[in-house]
Amino acid sequence: MPDENLDLPGSADIFSAAQAIAERIHRTPLITSAQIDRICGAHLFFKCEHLQKTGAFKARGASNALCHLPAGTSMVATHSSGNHGAALAWAAAARGLACTVVMPDTAPLAKRAAVAGYGAEIVLCGPTLQDREAALRKVVESTGAHVVPPFDDSRIIAGQGTVALEIIEQSRARGFNPDIVLTPVGGGGLLAGTGLAMAAMAPEVLVLGAEPAGADDAQRSLRSGTHVTSQTADTIADGLRTTLGQRNFALIRETVKDIVTVSEQGIVDAMQLLWTRTKQLVEPSAAVPLAAVLEHPARFRDKNVVLVLSGGNMDLERAASLFAEEATES
Amino acid sequence: MPDENLDLPGSADIFSAAQAIAERIHRTPLITSAQIDRICGAHLFFKCEHLQKTGAFKARGASNALCHLPAGTSMVATHSSGNHGAALAWAAAARGLACTVVMPDTAPLAKRAAVAGYGAEIVLCGPTLQDREAALRKVVESTGAHVVPPFDDSRIIAGQGTVALEIIEQSRARGFNPDIVLTPVGGGGLLAGTGLAMAAMAPEVLVLGAEPAGADDAQRSLRSGTHVTSQTADTIADGLRTTLGQRNFALIRETVKDIVTVSEQGIVDAMQLLWTRTKQLVEPSAAVPLAAVLEHPARFRDKNVVLVLSGGNMDLERAASLFAEEATES
Repeated sequence: MPDENLDLPGSADIFSAAQAIAERIHRTPLITSAQIDRICGAHLFFKCEHLQKTGAFKARGASNALCHLPAGTSMVATHSSGNHGAALAWAAAARGLACTVVMPDTAPLAKRAAVAGYGAEIVLCGPTLQDREAALRKVVESTGAHVVPPFDDSRIIAGQGTVALEIIEQSRARGFNPDIVLTPVGGGGLLAGTGLAMAAMAPEVLVLGAEPAGADDAQRSLRSGTHVTSQTADTIADGLRTTLGQRNFALIRETVKDIVTVSEQGIVDAMQLLWTRTKQLVEPSAAVPLAAVLEHPARFRDKNVVLVLSGGNMDLERAASLFAEEATES
Repeated sequence: MPDENLDLPGSADIFSAAQAIAERIHRTPLITSAQIDRICGAHLFFKCEHLQKTGAFKARGASNALCHLPAGTSMVATHSSGNHGAALAWAAAARGLACTVVMPDTAPLAKRAAVAGYGAEIVLCGPTLQDREAALRKVVESTGAHVVPPFDDSRIIAGQGTVALEIIEQSRARGFNPDIVLTPVGGGGLLAGTGLAMAAMAPEVLVLGAEPAGADDAQRSLRSGTHVTSQTADTIADGLRTTLGQRNFALIRETVKDIVTVSEQGIVDAMQLLWTRTKQLVEPSAAVPLAAVLEHPARFRDKNVVLVLSGGNMDLERAASLFAEEATES
């Protein structure tokens, strides 16, 4: 059972967040590809959060969190594999706040460069959640910074949920009803926020998560009903290596129907398809929902499916080497 | 002096083309990047022809040419390093016409695959214009196909010019006046069509071409006033290795102020900037205008500059290796 003392956001918090952050974030486009639709046998709509400020949906949650800081806060800190760190650094800079980001030393260089580019201080640590939390504790002890967690936070979940409000508005404006909304799931901020928003605004829409089979804690948590809090994540989708947060799990079990897993090769194939057919440069994590459609076609056949392209930040050299390996194999 | 017998298009042909192809092509977006603007010290607007049908502006000219075929034509043919071939194959398939494309064996695999994917027959040849023309003559002799040239053709130039009409409409809708429109130049279809349209519709706008220093026949032609018809093209911008067409030169000398050249490293840097900042996957040729702004900043400082992102078709592995080389060097 979820801890009854958890402060969970409600749908009203998502509406407030949408108002609070409207001036700071982009309303990202919803794009289609006739060629990918033919390949998948479904009607896919890609919500382009890789075109969001800072190149990822994380700008939504970070912006919203900074609208709800304790009075007198002059410094914020977090741990992040990259996109949340960059988003917090960006949001903090816009408000004149100091910011420190604890990052695993496995984070892509491009993500480190983005955090530094927004003027935040970077503290490197080991790759596990325990490593990150220990390093963050140290920062807080020495600086008194206010912590903005990457996903297990009511303000963050409400902020990420604003993407679902846009999906609902844009699908109505375009005259179609989504059957399924599919988001990647790592810590679960995006998925929990999307589930919460859809349950309130469009309960007929099936909300599904997609994650790498090599980091399948969310699927195991949801299917077993017991929160799995540790895993040895092994995936190229660097944004999805974290385990599900407590608040995230509590909301996901109420609002998300299922979580689908995908193979590493499936992620590379989906990313390559997105690059070549839509000409959109998305990072591996963002390709996970399309990988789910490609690897589980029967679940999506002929359906209107909205897939969140969660981000577009990566080391180009590394991404390219994935395709090079594939070209060599085929 | 231009040959007086050349059938040159007029601005009316561009308006007719826009009407004729409206249902078949995309009206592509005009996007901006605050980060690239800061780097360049100018206001840049990118016209996204890499999001055009077939992934390149060439769909415009090919569509228009097929609206003006001799009666009874059942087969078309062309020579192309890639994007025109794919566009013609696509346009022919839509009308139930057979199509043969002569391609240099140096053309990117992705471009060959696209031509084949639209159902056209491919005939490979050597890399020079002479090689291509000889191979195409053979095809015509044996099949009687109607030739749709890649650029030196009145219908093609008028079709490519429709991009300029959209630029004018979109800049008015967005409330800004372009100071400069900058397109890549290879055979000169896009640049001649743009120059012609701007001269008629917005003569106050400066039209400039941009080409690799390793394929600078257009600059030499324009600056000397004498049509340079041969060069040893050496550039990663595979779409720009051809020499300027006769009709194209005749129009460009009347409507284009200057042609700027860029280095190979400049093309890689501009492409990397576009990939990482706009998350748009453009091919090397499409990055040439931004390379021109980066390498000649004084010419563009504080100006409103529209740059045509001409296409997005390339071998990802090859593109990636360009960035890898750069990462190793730096």
